[in-house]
Amino acid sequence: MNLDDDIALAHALADAAGAVIRPYFRARFVQEAKADASPVTQADREAEEAIRALIEEHRAGDGIIGEEYGAARADAERVWVLDPIDGTRAFIGGRPIFGTLIALMIEGHPVLGVIDQPISSERWIGAAGRPTRFNGKPAGTRACPELSRALFATTAPWFCGGFEALRSAAGDTLLGGDCYNYALLASGHGDLVVEEGLKLHDWAALLPVVEGAGGRMTDWHGQSLHKGSDGRVVAVGDPALLPQVLELLER
Amino acid sequence: MNLDDDIALAHALADAAGAVIRPYFRARFVQEAKADASPVTQADREAEEAIRALIEEHRAGDGIIGEEYGAARADAERVWVLDPIDGTRAFIGGRPIFGTLIALMIEGHPVLGVIDQPISSERWIGAAGRPTRFNGKPAGTRACPELSRALFATTAPWFCGGFEALRSAAGDTLLGGDCYNYALLASGHGDLVVEEGLKLHDWAALLPVVEGAGGRMTDWHGQSLHKGSDGRVVAVGDPALLPQVLELLER
Repeated sequence: MNLDDDIALAHALADAAGAVIRPYFRARFVQEAKADASPVTQADREAEEAIRALIEEHRAGDGIIGEEYGAARADAERVWVLDPIDGTRAFIGGRPIFGTLIALMIEGHPVLGVIDQPISSERWIGAAGRPTRFNGKPAGTRACPELSRALFATTAPWFCGGFEALRSAAGDTLLGGDCYNYALLASGHGDLVVEEGLKLHDWAALLPVVEGAGGRMTDWHGQSLHKGSDGRVVAVGDPALLPQVLELLER
Repeated sequence: MNLDDDIALAHALADAAGAVIRPYFRARFVQEAKADASPVTQADREAEEAIRALIEEHRAGDGIIGEEYGAARADAERVWVLDPIDGTRAFIGGRPIFGTLIALMIEGHPVLGVIDQPISSERWIGAAGRPTRFNGKPAGTRACPELSRALFATTAPWFCGGFEALRSAAGDTLLGGDCYNYALLASGHGDLVVEEGLKLHDWAALLPVVEGAGGRMTDWHGQSLHKGSDGRVVAVGDPALLPQVLELLER
């Protein structure tokens, strides 16, 4: 299996998920969503079913780890990691800035990642050793070597320890956004995202997108993210920002 | 001048603003944005110029109050109130959920309001005595009589005193969003928005949209909003929510 074939499959997976998700967006039924941390919608489940069926059909030996339906062959060399709707609250609230996340991990490292926004038809795809592409065109982060000028985005203060220190140090702060913050950073519209409590399916697809665009994505100690990471992540568009952010997080 | 004519002009104003704004969205120059509270972009200024020129051309005697260029004939019976880009941070961050706000106030009361999202081509328009329309079709809020089930949205905790109490009492909380939160509430995708520090140009267009959709929008004491209000607003989709929210805010 070469990377081109996997990229082609990843596009097909995202297309299938989007086709399932679109009719549910802003549908009235969504308001029954539970009030707990991560509302699970019909769209989430059906989209994951659609993705898993395609993987079973085209890559029968690969493992799958999905937010909704758990793990199958999780010890395989190649494992697809899925979050059909990242940003479930945004989805429920009718905001077209949630995303479908699809990653391929090989021997524990994410080598391919897709962030797909099916309402606005925006797709970022990152693959090891290749430039990240946004809707088919190369995407790149922007220069921002000083934290005092950085646009810092995070979904909510309560998902980001050190939030007040980061907010004080950064140039400006934007809340909400989920995976979309990382996608926009990869396209040079933001400089810093810091979050905690992320599961593997929340971050695996983001890393190839961010790093293929020239950014860096690590844990809060600057270490590479891996399957056993503690869910604390930092993403910077300009690698020169990373030491400043890590120093602040370690205080 | 009848209301239909004013609605037609409001559409033309929003069209003109959108045409100016679209090319600037996600343009690289935006990153020079200042780090202070309300970054002012070229798009903001040029869009307001375009709107003001049309008002001068078609309603020469009307007053204008704009975020960028201040007031002209502010004491006129009819005054247009403009915020070309509400959600400047979202705009700078590349999120297509900012909005162009256009209101017409007659004798101090907003009788017409437009919330326009020019990237996704979404337009809400509310006019006194008529149902709010979203892209030409009637829009309505949803029932949600219990705060414990409400989806509460606010741009940031620091623009919302009482935030923690509201977050605890509400079913779920969504951050970011600016004017888009009120628009989505008018379409039944949210239940509650509470904010403070709003200027006249931040809220005047929202009120006709929210109330024409069946919701209520008042100050934090349940009083009607007017030119001299203190900038604290609450919007509910289901009027039954209002007393619960006010009681909580008055504690």
